[in-house]
Amino acid sequence: MAEGLVQRLKSIVGAGATASVKPKQLDQWRRQLAECAEAKGGEVSARTRAAALAQTYLELDDVGRHAFLRLISLEFGPDPARVATAHAAYQAAVGSERQWDAEAALRAALRSARIRILTQFNAIPQGVKFLVDLRADLLRYLDEDAELSPLDRELESRLAAWFDVGFLELQRITWASPAVLLEKLIKYEAVHEIRSWTDLKNRLDSDRRLYAFFHPRMPMEPLIFVEVALTDHLADSVQALLDEHAPVFDARRADTAIFYSISNTQTGLRGVSFGNFLLKRVIDDLQRDFPKLRHFATLSPLPGFSSWARKNPQELAAAGLEPDLAQLAAGEWAKDRALARKTNESLSQLAARYLTQAKSGRGDGRLPLDPVARFHLGNGARLERINPLGDASPNGMKQSFGVMVNYLYDLDELEENVESFAREGTIATSAAVRRLARQKQN
Amino acid sequence: MAEGLVQRLKSIVGAGATASVKPKQLDQWRRQLAECAEAKGGEVSARTRAAALAQTYLELDDVGRHAFLRLISLEFGPDPARVATAHAAYQAAVGSERQWDAEAALRAALRSARIRILTQFNAIPQGVKFLVDLRADLLRYLDEDAELSPLDRELESRLAAWFDVGFLELQRITWASPAVLLEKLIKYEAVHEIRSWTDLKNRLDSDRRLYAFFHPRMPMEPLIFVEVALTDHLADSVQALLDEHAPVFDARRADTAIFYSISNTQTGLRGVSFGNFLLKRVIDDLQRDFPKLRHFATLSPLPGFSSWARKNPQELAAAGLEPDLAQLAAGEWAKDRALARKTNESLSQLAARYLTQAKSGRGDGRLPLDPVARFHLGNGARLERINPLGDASPNGMKQSFGVMVNYLYDLDELEENVESFAREGTIATSAAVRRLARQKQN
Amino acid sequence: MAEGLVQRLKSIVGAGATASVKPKQLDQWRRQLAECAEAKGGEVSARTRAAALAQTYLELDDVGRHAFLRLISLEFGPDPARVATAHAAYQAAVGSERQWDAEAALRAALRSARIRILTQFNAIPQGVKFLVDLRADLLRYLDEDAELSPLDRELESRLAAWFDVGFLELQRITWASPAVLLEKLIKYEAVHEIRSWTDLKNRLDSDRRLYAFFHPRMPMEPLIFVEVALTDHLADSVQALLDEHAPVFDARRADTAIFYSISNTQTGLRGVSFGNFLLKRVIDDLQRDFPKLRHFATLSPLPGFSSWARKNPQELAAAGLEPDLAQLAAGEWAKDRALARKTNESLSQLAARYLTQAKSGRGDGRLPLDPVARFHLGNGARLERINPLGDASPNGMKQSFGVMVNYLYDLDELEENVESFAREGTIATSAAVRRLARQKQN
Amino acid sequence: MAEGLVQRLKSIVGAGATASVKPKQLDQWRRQLAECAEAKGGEVSARTRAAALAQTYLELDDVGRHAFLRLISLEFGPDPARVATAHAAYQAAVGSERQWDAEAALRAALRSARIRILTQFNAIPQGVKFLVDLRADLLRYLDEDAELSPLDRELESRLAAWFDVGFLELQRITWASPAVLLEKLIKYEAVHEIRSWTDLKNRLDSDRRLYAFFHPRMPMEPLIFVEVALTDHLADSVQALLDEHAPVFDARRADTAIFYSISNTQTGLRGVSFGNFLLKRVIDDLQRDFPKLRHFATLSPLPGFSSWARKNPQELAAAGLEPDLAQLAAGEWAKDRALARKTNESLSQLAARYLTQAKSGRGDGRLPLDPVARFHLGNGARLERINPLGDASPNGMKQSFGVMVNYLYDLDELEENVESFAREGTIATSAAVRRLARQKQN
Repeated sequence: MAEGLVQRLKSIVGAGATASVKPKQLDQWRRQLAECAEAKGGEVSARTRAAALAQTYLELDDVGRHAFLRLISLEFGPDPARVATAHAAYQAAVGSERQWDAEAALRAALRSARIRILTQFNAIPQGVKFLVDLRADLLRYLDEDAELSPLDRELESRLAAWFDVGFLELQRITWASPAVLLEKLIKYEAVHEIRSWTDLKNRLDSDRRLYAFFHPRMPMEPLIFVEVALTDHLADSVQALLDEHAPVFDARRADTAIFYSISNTQTGLRGVSFGNFLLKRVIDDLQRDFPKLRHFATLSPLPGFSSWARKNPQELAAAGLEPDLAQLAAGEWAKDRALARKTNESLSQLAARYLTQAKSGRGDGRLPLDPVARFHLGNGARLERINPLGDASPNGMKQSFGVMVNYLYDLDELEENVESFAREGTIATSAAVRRLARQKQN
Repeated sequence: MAEGLVQRLKSIVGAGATASVKPKQLDQWRRQLAECAEAKGGEVSARTRAAALAQTYLELDDVGRHAFLRLISLEFGPDPARVATAHAAYQAAVGSERQWDAEAALRAALRSARIRILTQFNAIPQGVKFLVDLRADLLRYLDEDAELSPLDRELESRLAAWFDVGFLELQRITWASPAVLLEKLIKYEAVHEIRSWTDLKNRLDSDRRLYAFFHPRMPMEPLIFVEVALTDHLADSVQALLDEHAPVFDARRADTAIFYSISNTQTGLRGVSFGNFLLKRVIDDLQRDFPKLRHFATLSPLPGFSSWARKNPQELAAAGLEPDLAQLAAGEWAKDRALARKTNESLSQLAARYLTQAKSGRGDGRLPLDPVARFHLGNGARLERINPLGDASPNGMKQSFGVMVNYLYDLDELEENVESFAREGTIATSAAVRRLARQKQN
Repeated sequence: MAEGLVQRLKSIVGAGATASVKPKQLDQWRRQLAECAEAKGGEVSARTRAAALAQTYLELDDVGRHAFLRLISLEFGPDPARVATAHAAYQAAVGSERQWDAEAALRAALRSARIRILTQFNAIPQGVKFLVDLRADLLRYLDEDAELSPLDRELESRLAAWFDVGFLELQRITWASPAVLLEKLIKYEAVHEIRSWTDLKNRLDSDRRLYAFFHPRMPMEPLIFVEVALTDHLADSVQALLDEHAPVFDARRADTAIFYSISNTQTGLRGVSFGNFLLKRVIDDLQRDFPKLRHFATLSPLPGFSSWARKNPQELAAAGLEPDLAQLAAGEWAKDRALARKTNESLSQLAARYLTQAKSGRGDGRLPLDPVARFHLGNGARLERINPLGDASPNGMKQSFGVMVNYLYDLDELEENVESFAREGTIATSAAVRRLARQKQN
Repeated sequence: MAEGLVQRLKSIVGAGATASVKPKQLDQWRRQLAECAEAKGGEVSARTRAAALAQTYLELDDVGRHAFLRLISLEFGPDPARVATAHAAYQAAVGSERQWDAEAALRAALRSARIRILTQFNAIPQGVKFLVDLRADLLRYLDEDAELSPLDRELESRLAAWFDVGFLELQRITWASPAVLLEKLIKYEAVHEIRSWTDLKNRLDSDRRLYAFFHPRMPMEPLIFVEVALTDHLADSVQALLDEHAPVFDARRADTAIFYSISNTQTGLRGVSFGNFLLKRVIDDLQRDFPKLRHFATLSPLPGFSSWARKNPQELAAAGLEPDLAQLAAGEWAKDRALARKTNESLSQLAARYLTQAKSGRGDGRLPLDPVARFHLGNGARLERINPLGDASPNGMKQSFGVMVNYLYDLDELEENVESFAREGTIATSAAVRRLARQKQN
């Protein structure tokens, strides 16, 4: 380890994150980690010791875990001097026969002990889940401690390899699934809260489908799940969909599948994406079971709508809306029929402009501001319809004044949409939404 | 791609391995591979296209596959110029706050399109098996085409991540296992040929156990398997163990487990080791089921014995053996009692010296020449006993004049043995074997 | 069909149960049933037709079903004349070689078309459940229509053959069981209501076990289930056991298993007993998993206690209790410590006498009046302890003034207890309960 | 037990079947059986004792088993006096309200202890299989000891209830099925011997299907199985079907399913029929998987052909065949083309007459003599085509001079065929077979 690093680590250990971790403790961990990294006594023993260390980690509080992860991140990285040598040899070999071995040697020099250690932690029961949760810890500490980032990047890269979509299993979840799994859906649902077991049962009825991706080593842990309603129209209200007293639709007659909720469940897998594959596989599965299905669409929230509106009063004015957003979110206006009609019209225009014109700072500034729009448009969907009062729940009113949107997955144009969205930021839009985006109230 | 590379690739394509692949075909593959690498039209589409390409690969002959893999290896590697820039930034940042991002950036610059493409091939059904088999192809071509090595190294590294022992499932295989799986054991058994379904059934009887490691995405493909006999003594003859007419031993009375055959099955996983973990897990499982078990040992072949003897006539002489190895391998001597006693004594001494003194050129020259010895001694076993006529089959006579050996897994000394073997090349040996190694006939 | 029967059937069909079923409808059913009985067009077709008829049955209301079942019971029975002939032949053959064939012939003459028809109904999906439910219907109609009894007896006999304990599977139910199954436990629990999914989860925690018997053809339908608490003492309060906030007991330390709730779930299986086998198999399973278990006991209700007390005011007086049972059931007395002590003492004496002396009219008048006592004592358990305020729920207070009882399953004395209970009605009792039963307040 | 019976039993016990069973042993069994019958010590204990007795049975030789079963058959039957009383009461009650209870009482009087005892044997592991095998024993002894018949009849009736087709599971068996199950197919195949595991694998290839019925309590024991070839023509040669080197047919193009082997496996289930249901369910399953299938037919043997021919020389003569059947069975004639053509023509005529005109003594003399014909015609199939040299194996030549026959299952005419076959013995026949049956050579 470079001298400078030791200095900096010590300075940090003496204060801040690892304040309450005793130097003696750090020394012990350091020694144990080194033994794991060297596979002293053989790989089998090393893994056994790593498992013990992983158990230790589980018993630490946040301060302890943070210190432990810092230790790995800072002290078990590659050796810059060795990297320099390997790099020089590589560049010298370019174009010659020796280039290939030199490339491999450079790669090996960069391979750190960090990831070898973390992988050994995998030996505890449910080791994969352990590492996913460890990354979730890491991401929390990372916000205020950028020096954890090399460990985070390496772990993300390893998790991306492990959670390659080719390893994931698509499973349909039903009322006959284990309660311990269903309980997790209740916990993880991130879009429209599941209020009770009855609510959940309703979402698993014969006119519904719920699919999740699983990793073979995390058997009762859905990684991401999507809730689908089978129906005969482009649904415009989530309250209608979630009404437990609504009659059950005869799914054999369905021509439309509505994806009305998609939830990622594992914070520790941030950056490892599989949502687009999930939708693809679900559509395949639905087509097999319901050959009459013609339309695949979402009923989606606009999570950034109200905060964007707050920052863009001129847009509110252009849409003929008062700047009092609290009143708009309170929703009293919805009770007056005439007022509701006018407000909904204005909100529709505003939402159309938000979705088509508001840009995120990310990428090259061409990506939509709204994260849900980014996801579906990036997958090739078309912005199909704006639904005022599509989600009249308190949360829906607060987030987007009740507006929801349908993204339509037209299988014939998916690939082209993906391409032109990626290349030029083009947003596929229905004529109706385009019209709305152009309209102004004054 | 650097200009030089293109030149060299062209020169090769014009001759040698890719002789019969038309340039037009190569161009088409190149374009398709580039589309996969860039994920044109989105990840989902890219993977669909990659799957099609993987299907194409399956239909190619060896010449075609070789050319295809060369293309990936040579044209989809990292860009040396980009690596140089990233490396300079990294070295400049060492010791500063920017070191961590610079490390990640250098790693990213080294990350090649090769592995991204191969991983996408994973999307075909049984994609993992496809990649393992593709690596088996690669290893064959590699012998005569070292330029495939960067692709091989990257693929090995990815497979090592995927086949981490934490993902493997230990399964006991019985006569109630699927025939399609049992058939593979017959095919894969590499030590003592399984001659028939009856032979196999005998090896799955109540006094036997057969365990294998599986990967969750290769469900009917054992990766490695071990055959165990439950008995009450240190077995000294594989023919006795495999005798279908021998009475079945009451396994509840067993105090000894003999590992009499260990077979790796997937050439494509060369370099990814899990044999040591297999034995560890099998011992755990056996101890749970048979609490009276006290001894765990192998009955192992000496695959390099006869060829070493051929090259070391002075050792033959020292052991009092004639230099006519063909006669020794023919085994007629075994029929004459007195001659057999004398010959076996000599062979025992010879084998003891072979196992304890003959060294491989690998590592730092301290590793045993015999590959089976390397494996078990490296795992911490002790060289326990030499068994002349332990394998009187034609193959056994040819390979090692019938000699077999027991390696003993003494759980109390495993870790120490591993350590001193790794550090100093020390071979743990029983007193009896030590004595044999010292004895000379003249 | 004997002429008299037709008359009687007609008279009934013209009025009463089948009043609203049109004669034409009855004629049609009669014809269809006859076709099934004769297996016209072959067995396969007959079963297909029977399945259609079973579907018809499912769509009928109670009046229709009653008429339908009457038809089967009255018109598809054995022919008395044929029975008479077969019987005469049988008696004539007794002692001769022809006796055996004659016995079989008599049995055949008694074999009715009724059961053949019902068995064919088995062909619908979930046919076994259909027949169990059909018997539940039958039992309801039987109360007011004794002429259904031959059909009921034949169906009971067939169900007893099908639900032979040798066919039943003991399954442990956990929180990982399918929700659709757990939901049924909530519905079927007959002793201590399961108030919520959280309550249920608590009953499936690591210090609890829940076992059920299943029939292989009714996969998600528990036939009977028992809830077990693992603990270190003879539990005396069901509220303590069901307290969701109570700490979880470390089951590995358990020496006592408390069966605190046993529920039969299928009315249609009345008369087919398997409760005793369930307890036996559960005890076996628990002993395997928890070798330290020494005591197996119930915490049981006294369902007939308060109604017996009402009818036996002299017993109340003897125990020193006021005749105002409503006040006793209201339970206000439990709040006054001194009063509670005195009342509990009195109730304990009263309960001891109820359980040991109150007899049912059934059997030869030696069976206990209390049905739960009959069950456990008949299985060989010992009446171990009376627990005043063992169930302080409104239902517990109403049913038994809060008293519960422990029946102890002492494996060494089970068989003897069964025998002396069966032969002489002897109730195995602990010394403490015997003492209570003798005590009087005045 | 009636005095006479005791006498007769004793006389038998003193000699014959039970000669070597000591009276003391018989007394002990008698006492044990009586305890089981009375459920002394409770049902649970009785069943435990019965299980012990069942184990005893398994260790007996044939003489012992025969004696044991005689004991049950003769001594644990109904009491004729009690039956007489119940019968009198029943007849007196006919037409009155008491008829129904009287019917049940008579049935109860006839219910013997025999079946109660046997059912208790069910408690041993694999108890159902035990009883099926016990019946197989019984059937062997029955041939020479008619007094076992009441026990046999009762057991058959109980097995018929247990093996009701509604309980049976249709399973497709593939090369992925457990070896222990596949091994049983090899053992049980009764029509065309499975010569090796390779032969079996060929019968499970992608252009084949193999289905079996299973009972939920006999999981690895097929009750009956059928082998199906998917093809595009009405197969006429079993050797062609079983040729391991024949190319695999693309099953998706199949329009014809050939049932070329149906084997009952459990002797102990004689009289319990499910073959017709098997074919029905298999046809349903095949239609689901291969919507293009139009034709369902068998390729069947004529097991009684040669022995019928031997007894009917006049038929041989009429068909223009020499009376030397040994020569006909030797099959040398098949090598001479002209002779083969002529012989085959004659054999076809002879077979047509055998199948349509030779009657069994069973039923009312209208049933075909050939058992396979009885089965398929009774199921509604049509006698479609005669295939000379359809089975040129030694067994096929011996049994039927190589002739095989196709029975065609035309779903539209099945029910009518069943009915007219049952009513009038009409054999559904193709025009071609009718023509053959009429032709004479001279």
